[in-house]
Amino acid sequence: MVVQIVLGSKSDLEIAKKATSVLKKLGIEYKVNIASAHRTPEIIEKLSRNDDIKVFIAIAGLAAALPGMLAAHTTKPVIGVPVSGKVCLDAILSMVQMPKGVPVATVGLDSGENAAILAAELLAMSDKKVRKALEKYRKELRESVEKDDEELTKADV
Amino acid sequence: MVVQIVLGSKSDLEIAKKATSVLKKLGIEYKVNIASAHRTPEIIEKLSRNDDIKVFIAIAGLAAALPGMLAAHTTKPVIGVPVSGKVCLDAILSMVQMPKGVPVATVGLDSGENAAILAAELLAMSDKKVRKALEKYRKELRESVEKDDEELTKADV
Amino acid sequence: MVVQIVLGSKSDLEIAKKATSVLKKLGIEYKVNIASAHRTPEIIEKLSRNDDIKVFIAIAGLAAALPGMLAAHTTKPVIGVPVSGKVCLDAILSMVQMPKGVPVATVGLDSGENAAILAAELLAMSDKKVRKALEKYRKELRESVEKDDEELTKADV
Amino acid sequence: MVVQIVLGSKSDLEIAKKATSVLKKLGIEYKVNIASAHRTPEIIEKLSRNDDIKVFIAIAGLAAALPGMLAAHTTKPVIGVPVSGKVCLDAILSMVQMPKGVPVATVGLDSGENAAILAAELLAMSDKKVRKALEKYRKELRESVEKDDEELTKADV
Amino acid sequence: MVVQIVLGSKSDLEIAKKATSVLKKLGIEYKVNIASAHRTPEIIEKLSRNDDIKVFIAIAGLAAALPGMLAAHTTKPVIGVPVSGKVCLDAILSMVQMPKGVPVATVGLDSGENAAILAAELLAMSDKKVRKALEKYRKELRESVEKDDEELTKADV
Amino acid sequence: MVVQIVLGSKSDLEIAKKATSVLKKLGIEYKVNIASAHRTPEIIEKLSRNDDIKVFIAIAGLAAALPGMLAAHTTKPVIGVPVSGKVCLDAILSMVQMPKGVPVATVGLDSGENAAILAAELLAMSDKKVRKALEKYRKELRESVEKDDEELTKADV
Amino acid sequence: MVVQIVLGSKSDLEIAKKATSVLKKLGIEYKVNIASAHRTPEIIEKLSRNDDIKVFIAIAGLAAALPGMLAAHTTKPVIGVPVSGKVCLDAILSMVQMPKGVPVATVGLDSGENAAILAAELLAMSDKKVRKALEKYRKELRESVEKDDEELTKADV
Amino acid sequence: MVVQIVLGSKSDLEIAKKATSVLKKLGIEYKVNIASAHRTPEIIEKLSRNDDIKVFIAIAGLAAALPGMLAAHTTKPVIGVPVSGKVCLDAILSMVQMPKGVPVATVGLDSGENAAILAAELLAMSDKKVRKALEKYRKELRESVEKDDEELTKADV
Repeated sequence: MVVQIVLGSKSDLEIAKKATSVLKKLGIEYKVNIASAHRTPEIIEKLSRNDDIKVFIAIAGLAAALPGMLAAHTTKPVIGVPVSGKVCLDAILSMVQMPKGVPVATVGLDSGENAAILAAELLAMSDKKVRKALEKYRKELRESVEKDDEELTKADV
Repeated sequence: MVVQIVLGSKSDLEIAKKATSVLKKLGIEYKVNIASAHRTPEIIEKLSRNDDIKVFIAIAGLAAALPGMLAAHTTKPVIGVPVSGKVCLDAILSMVQMPKGVPVATVGLDSGENAAILAAELLAMSDKKVRKALEKYRKELRESVEKDDEELTKADV
Repeated sequence: MVVQIVLGSKSDLEIAKKATSVLKKLGIEYKVNIASAHRTPEIIEKLSRNDDIKVFIAIAGLAAALPGMLAAHTTKPVIGVPVSGKVCLDAILSMVQMPKGVPVATVGLDSGENAAILAAELLAMSDKKVRKALEKYRKELRESVEKDDEELTKADV
Repeated sequence: MVVQIVLGSKSDLEIAKKATSVLKKLGIEYKVNIASAHRTPEIIEKLSRNDDIKVFIAIAGLAAALPGMLAAHTTKPVIGVPVSGKVCLDAILSMVQMPKGVPVATVGLDSGENAAILAAELLAMSDKKVRKALEKYRKELRESVEKDDEELTKADV
Repeated sequence: MVVQIVLGSKSDLEIAKKATSVLKKLGIEYKVNIASAHRTPEIIEKLSRNDDIKVFIAIAGLAAALPGMLAAHTTKPVIGVPVSGKVCLDAILSMVQMPKGVPVATVGLDSGENAAILAAELLAMSDKKVRKALEKYRKELRESVEKDDEELTKADV
Repeated sequence: MVVQIVLGSKSDLEIAKKATSVLKKLGIEYKVNIASAHRTPEIIEKLSRNDDIKVFIAIAGLAAALPGMLAAHTTKPVIGVPVSGKVCLDAILSMVQMPKGVPVATVGLDSGENAAILAAELLAMSDKKVRKALEKYRKELRESVEKDDEELTKADV
Repeated sequence: MVVQIVLGSKSDLEIAKKATSVLKKLGIEYKVNIASAHRTPEIIEKLSRNDDIKVFIAIAGLAAALPGMLAAHTTKPVIGVPVSGKVCLDAILSMVQMPKGVPVATVGLDSGENAAILAAELLAMSDKKVRKALEKYRKELRESVEKDDEELTKADV
Repeated sequence: MVVQIVLGSKSDLEIAKKATSVLKKLGIEYKVNIASAHRTPEIIEKLSRNDDIKVFIAIAGLAAALPGMLAAHTTKPVIGVPVSGKVCLDAILSMVQMPKGVPVATVGLDSGENAAILAAELLAMSDKKVRKALEKYRKELRESVEKDDEELTKADV
């Protein structure tokens, strides 16, 4: 296993699936667990000691302390995905505004895909296979925009 | 010791002093420590196991995870004081928006005084001396408003 | 009766039920009333004089003055639950940002559960039975996260 | 006395002076008092029963419950002036977002002048002298803009 | 006619109906028109010259300039009702934050009822019949809260 | 005259000077006036009928209705510059969120320069001299970044 | 072709159609393309070199860099339409708050119509036919408000 | 060189120095350049093709497109530091809310230190020396909190 995805709660599963579907496509091994920063802090600690993990993706809403608590227990990179709720700024600010010394690499609201791609970018720093997969993925994104553009050109808007 | 004040960082000391000055006035024992949710999580855990503590006051800014992490390790009440910074909503939302099961009793931005008074209200539930001190304090507040009003009436505004 | 729940309006009943269901589970006596800070201020005053009440939970939306007005008439702890509406920050800020001397212990938006748990934490300060119920509840929350995690591990995400 | 100005705290005096200076200019009688919605609720009630008062101007910051509490005790018009602080939206939303049945006529942040002018507009509904004073004031405002414009035209910008 | 309601657009009609239903109940004459600050500024001017009107209620969303433009053409009181949209703060701030000299008496988001009640409060300053109607309305509101409370007490929550 | 700059108030002069200094540099004729949407609406109308004007730049703070009211009286382009105050979002939203049919071309908070450059871009659509001046200006901006970069490279950061 | 509409993604098509329906009505030639600032930056560059284009309309959500990147490659006017999402302020602020030298003429959230009208206003600066079409469109808007007003007057509200 | 720091403007230098001082301490090679996403897009492209760079740190304010544009041209990790201004949310949201496929690893407002530490965490994934330096740094942070705590304990707060 290389990427450890941690959900703050079962309700964040849809966002996790956006991440795992990208990781599968890029051929990157991952594991998904649920562990609450506040309800099961000891699981957070245990995960932080697992040597097989290279990167964490933490997905949480509200006062989203999960990625920060993971970051507190490891010096491995922790990517945070804020989950939308009634007050959208809560999870974004709870992840971005970490104190000095314990960064969380925050991506967009509900953006499981970007968390997975960022994880891949980190692994690609020392793994050519992942870098190639990433470049292919980026190329496909470009082509999909180009295809959308072509279709639009044919349509009468 | 009865009230344990915990600061997220030395820079929160001014807010802590607002709390201690009220606690002194009300004759309530307290202790002040610095312990970072992210940099010294083990100190948080240690504090949470101290049987002498009845109430926690946690003072923190930014993605203020401190009161939440204390709350994660104890079922004693944790009062949170969000500290103002460049983005004022960050600390307020990080304290108020706790997940189900782990509440933080959040008071106003930078309001060390209200944290102390709330702590006193909790202790007063089973301590008549504190209740009387509180009622006296409340009376003084009322009289101070009345005195301000009298002075204003005499002035020409 | 021990916990007095006060709703600002009948429309806040769903949030109150989240609180009562937790209080029932923890074996804590409660009563629920509707009383508007602005439309029936005299009921607020009457409630504030009831000696049977140990803790208030006030649930209100918009310019949620209800918990503050209760707090103005008593030195017993008042827990505030902001209710979501079109402008989510209104009720949160109206509860958190209380003036010096009259704190409201604010919990999360619509979080009736956390209000009940916080109320229980206050009662547990001098009531061992409640403390045990709370610890059991906390343990169940932990186990529910662990069970969710187990189920997730078996599933293919 | 015709206009009753109420300050939530002595610190709001500067905003009150903006209002009194306009009221003086318009020849409208007023009185200024300090009365806290939360610390001296009984003073609020007393003021609300004064038959000499035609309009209230309530000036308050933070969770600015003052104008709302006045409005709860009277059916006379209550004008609210939100006072700026670290979180500017708190006082604005606490005044604007009143529940059905108890409106506060909210004017701009720190805008004591507009509160006074609005009070004058209410009095002018049945007082020709005030209406004339108001029209003169409005004319002066217009002329002051015109004079500023003339001076600017002469300057080299 | 006594109260002139002005809608910024046909889509604000539901909010207007909340106001007219209260005005009917209070026995206050009104008229409803649509007039856009930006698309039909000349209608705004015309309305502002109508001597039969005592109070304006202006209902508008987005950059809600309508009440301000009415206020620019008259010294009669203008009550503003911000209408909710995708960005709720836009209409609130566009009404509250008027420049010095031209106040808008802003009430809550979508709160046609409070606009009507505030209008009634202004008329009641010199009209005993309206004052009585208002006091009756207020009493009914109080009784409706009390009735809700009674029903709740009987129910098992 | 080609560009008409309109200030909502004398206090916006510093932002206007940012615009005029760019217009001078680009060799574009301009005139600066003060005219309040709410205090001198007739001046707004008069300006809107001046055939010499090709583009308007309207600079205003708070509930910044000025550019919208200009736009209501003309089909010439109106560029809006929101001016910062205690609540920064007020002027931005009051300009951006115009109703259908009456757009304001909004630029950044306090950004007199960008208003001037946008005005120049509009004039450059049919004026080669302005287009060349603009391209030169853009080139200078680029070179200034490059020069800053060079200096930084030599320094020890 | 005269107006080039660029969508950040296929999902912005509904907003584009609001723009094209207005442009058709005004008899203005346009073309619609999809080009992502981040996924196909080279298409942005290519579009910016097309001499047939007089005005750009860029429609994008989230961290809406599209209009800014177009503006970085051309001195022709770029109109930006922020698209609404879970965090509405993101796209508005990403377009309005451009750095000095590279303005984006931002219109309202999702307001494809206003982008088209603004584009027409720019073309009308040197094209009498467009100016007439615009004046007709403005007149129709006015008449539609007047017709709505008439219908309302007949109805019983 | 290993870490490429890019500033959107000379005015961001103070934030860059926070990053370089941490990188120096951790023994990590870096280079600092100024390159504007909007004024010198071609420099961004050039930097993105430099094979010596392993990680980018992009520091920018306002509609902070810089990190996103770097990310658009490379699949190497890009860390974004939003810089505070009058509207603090603008730069945070412009970095966090990137479209699918092009993530920016956003850290806290003005937090040059956390950008440097995150960069180090990425390098530490395949560089033991950096990992040790990071662990030492983390230990020092912990000790500094502990030392602050000790000093506080001796003081009388």
